[in-house]
Amino acid sequence: MPHIPLPEQLPGITGLLEYRLDTAMPIRELTQILLRGDSTLTTGERELIAALVSSRNCTAFCEAAHTKAADILLGEDETARAVKKDVETAPVSEKMKALLQIAALTQQNGSAVTPEAIARAREAGATDREIHDTVLIAALFCLYNKYVDGLETVAPSDPAFYQTLGERITGRGYVRPPGGYPIQTH
Amino acid sequence: MPHIPLPEQLPGITGLLEYRLDTAMPIRELTQILLRGDSTLTTGERELIAALVSSRNCTAFCEAAHTKAADILLGEDETARAVKKDVETAPVSEKMKALLQIAALTQQNGSAVTPEAIARAREAGATDREIHDTVLIAALFCLYNKYVDGLETVAPSDPAFYQTLGERITGRGYVRPPGGYPIQTH
Repeated sequence: MPHIPLPEQLPGITGLLEYRLDTAMPIRELTQILLRGDSTLTTGERELIAALVSSRNCTAFCEAAHTKAADILLGEDETARAVKKDVETAPVSEKMKALLQIAALTQQNGSAVTPEAIARAREAGATDREIHDTVLIAALFCLYNKYVDGLETVAPSDPAFYQTLGERITGRGYVRPPGGYPIQTH
Repeated sequence: MPHIPLPEQLPGITGLLEYRLDTAMPIRELTQILLRGDSTLTTGERELIAALVSSRNCTAFCEAAHTKAADILLGEDETARAVKKDVETAPVSEKMKALLQIAALTQQNGSAVTPEAIARAREAGATDREIHDTVLIAALFCLYNKYVDGLETVAPSDPAFYQTLGERITGRGYVRPPGGYPIQTH
């Protein structure tokens, strides 16, 4: 049960983003820019970073939502699962492996990101901007994960919920829909 | 040395906020709302949360900056130091002790925030909104700390730097000054 009263029909982050609309707006905007804005990383690759970080933080709601978003964007459901299991053997490019490892290190602790991890990414072709964005996406999902878990929001167990949510965040993105955010699975 | 090229005269978060202005804007806005907007917590109390979380994440730049901000807002330099050393014996209210412990738990892991920690805060008079904001401020400073450390930005050793920065963020807040953010200590 959430630590503060939140509408039952809005589990996970969805209720929190309606709880304080003024703080929700810049959170949504930052996410929209980083995950859907111009980038040399695909939207699917960026959702993989979000799914991996949420998985490492054991935040069930965010992990399920961003795994589903990655699945939809990549057109298959193997890669996100493989990335969460073991980045090194996952079917992604060498550059993405290096960036995903940087994200995983950022999740542990910012100072865990070593010059060697950065050098590996550069050797695989990563740009400064891709390295920057990887660290910031990982940091943003640590914010989300701590927000969602710190207030003990509910993670639905029904996969249909995450299908609906995944379609929403891949279709419409992270901006607030007109009239709010009434996620319904029925 | 930072992992990506950043202007030498803009250490810590300041160079990152100039590196990508589009992502910096919502980060600044969220911080301004949470730390300077309307709240039943004083600005000094909110800076104490930022200082404590940054201290627990061992992010020297953010710890020094928000300790200085708290010192300026509280008009003395004992409380922030005491909070970072031991929340329970620090000269703050019972409500602030409980909220600072929630922030410290959020820093560890969102799921570390127990119903007991929340009940303690409520018994000391904390509102839902104060509990919400404490968790979100702690989560935001984990974002900052991971961003600052994950890209290995520089933390100046000169206390005069943090005096200047502290005066800026207590005087002007977290919005971008017209023309950018050229922090100078001389």
